[in-house]
Amino acid sequence: MKFSCEQQKLTKALNVVSKAVTSRSTIPILKGIMLEVTSEGKLTMSASDLDISIQDTIDVNTTEPGAIIVMAKLFGDIIRKLPSVEINIESDDENNVTIKCMNSEFKIIGMSTDEFPNVNMVSEETEAIDFNKSELRKMIDKTSFAASNDESRGVITGVLIELTPDQMNMVAIDGYRMAINRKAKVSTNPGNIIISAKIISEISRIIGETDSDEENGKMLLSEKKVIFKFDNIQAELKLIDGEFINYKDILPKDSKITAKVNRANFMESIERASLLSKAGKNNLIKIDLKDNIMTITSNSEEGNVKEEILTEKEGEDLVIGFNAQYVLDILKAIDDEEIKLFFNTGITPCLIEPIEGDKFEYLVLPVRIN
Amino acid sequence: MKFSCEQQKLTKALNVVSKAVTSRSTIPILKGIMLEVTSEGKLTMSASDLDISIQDTIDVNTTEPGAIIVMAKLFGDIIRKLPSVEINIESDDENNVTIKCMNSEFKIIGMSTDEFPNVNMVSEETEAIDFNKSELRKMIDKTSFAASNDESRGVITGVLIELTPDQMNMVAIDGYRMAINRKAKVSTNPGNIIISAKIISEISRIIGETDSDEENGKMLLSEKKVIFKFDNIQAELKLIDGEFINYKDILPKDSKITAKVNRANFMESIERASLLSKAGKNNLIKIDLKDNIMTITSNSEEGNVKEEILTEKEGEDLVIGFNAQYVLDILKAIDDEEIKLFFNTGITPCLIEPIEGDKFEYLVLPVRIN
Repeated sequence: MKFSCEQQKLTKALNVVSKAVTSRSTIPILKGIMLEVTSEGKLTMSASDLDISIQDTIDVNTTEPGAIIVMAKLFGDIIRKLPSVEINIESDDENNVTIKCMNSEFKIIGMSTDEFPNVNMVSEETEAIDFNKSELRKMIDKTSFAASNDESRGVITGVLIELTPDQMNMVAIDGYRMAINRKAKVSTNPGNIIISAKIISEISRIIGETDSDEENGKMLLSEKKVIFKFDNIQAELKLIDGEFINYKDILPKDSKITAKVNRANFMESIERASLLSKAGKNNLIKIDLKDNIMTITSNSEEGNVKEEILTEKEGEDLVIGFNAQYVLDILKAIDDEEIKLFFNTGITPCLIEPIEGDKFEYLVLPVRIN
Repeated sequence: MKFSCEQQKLTKALNVVSKAVTSRSTIPILKGIMLEVTSEGKLTMSASDLDISIQDTIDVNTTEPGAIIVMAKLFGDIIRKLPSVEINIESDDENNVTIKCMNSEFKIIGMSTDEFPNVNMVSEETEAIDFNKSELRKMIDKTSFAASNDESRGVITGVLIELTPDQMNMVAIDGYRMAINRKAKVSTNPGNIIISAKIISEISRIIGETDSDEENGKMLLSEKKVIFKFDNIQAELKLIDGEFINYKDILPKDSKITAKVNRANFMESIERASLLSKAGKNNLIKIDLKDNIMTITSNSEEGNVKEEILTEKEGEDLVIGFNAQYVLDILKAIDDEEIKLFFNTGITPCLIEPIEGDKFEYLVLPVRIN
């Protein structure tokens, strides 16, 4: 194998595929990146940790086609530290890789591609779904934080992608809170898939870090995996088996109290109130809704805090406690200037929605106040 | 005590004095900041960890003069999170502190000022030395990194400030390398002081973070301490007792080999070479000086690297090994485009100097190559 390529182009592709390189595995080959060069001048970089496999294809000047595995960390560090000019890379029959650039010459030990996981991405897909990259990214970021971090929790460590005839919904839940995000979209083949929240977040990160003029991508669904295709990138993600929680049953059917608040004011007040709640164990803040004033209080051995914000309330007065962090995570994921809160009692969940429409719904469980 | 002040002004002063707040102490009062308000509308904030004491004085609107101690972390977090408008702060006879700002009200527990370390900064100084703030900062940053981190090493954990009749020199040494920085300056009272490198670095950090039009400050020397005064800040630093190493004896008197190199090229080549030396134990790189080519090599189980740079050499050829990190630390502390290296043999120290003059000298010990 022998080719040359601009340092910056190589660095960008390395940053993309590195997202699939595991740092924890004891299998050396999973710490590697496969470089495959064709005689047509295409370099495909691939990496896989078995749950996610990523490929990025870039144009290079090929002298001799071939393939080799390089250790992702060392190869990446070398390429990133070289000057931004043309880099020459070649491998010999003993898997020795030579990297030459101006007055620098590296010889590193590569590995044969024989044992590399098969990431050829042939897809017996049932359906190809178009998506807008930045819209997909937002949906992921606005839901995945609410999934469970506890790897023993099965389906709820994942984000549900629900395809209905006219909508695409993402849902995540961890037992204390739930995030729902909806987008109008025509799907010919309705169905549900569940993807690990940690893994789908890598797709959001890659979209955020790559700058290209292409606005759209394709999602190819099959029984056990989903492939995201955009720019020259292909990412294959393993699906989580199982039935997702019937989340619609959890949503409260009606509410006795609604309160409209300015999101930024509400968020900043909770952030300040949590300065004192942190000292306690469960980050408890108390919300007191009385007429058109919402009072947020919190206290610890170090002192106490009282925050007041204006609200447009309908229904009775109410006192309810929350874990400040759960409410903050939700408020940070919303862009709207104003939001609506729905309550029933001090021991039933609070629902957070936009003033109009149903593009998002967040549910958060209260904490009992002693 | 009762006063009001702009949030941003308070935040800036808090950032300065917080540098003297210890996080490790078990003495609660050392985690505090003293607020002292005079009827003339001055708020002095003070903090001390006994090795360094810092005061910053700002203008406020005083309603009632007085003094109180607040916990630095909590008080700082609260002030930083409040909106950038006027903040009202008052304390009562039971040391309760109330912080009010728009719709926020905090009540936190303060402490009496009785047990706070005396940081009144009265100085029986022998001499006041003027300094240019950014020059002082550079001298600190260009030397302090070379001091020993090992707290049991006494004087060499400090930076020597040497005042001669016409120069101010700073020197630091850790047994493997030495940094010397010189500045022309008239001192009427020559003498030496030693200040902990960790502590004097806080002075550099404060100068770097404060933006003011004042370019100069004053250094007030007395027997056991030194006070740095600039802007409205006073910092009192405890001196380290003892005689500094006679560093001039360590400097090689002459050299058989000199090599002129471009600093950036030299640094980048060593950075790349160290990518492979890191895998080894002591970060070893080998420098091979032959005619007008300097070849830097390094190898590990993962591979090897060869970097070549042009040099203007005088004297014999030479092979010498270094810990890459020690050389990099020095090269990062130099601004000059070109530098001169002085060698004698492969087992004697290398001296690094500017092309002209003696504004800096760095010495680094070689590592034996097997």
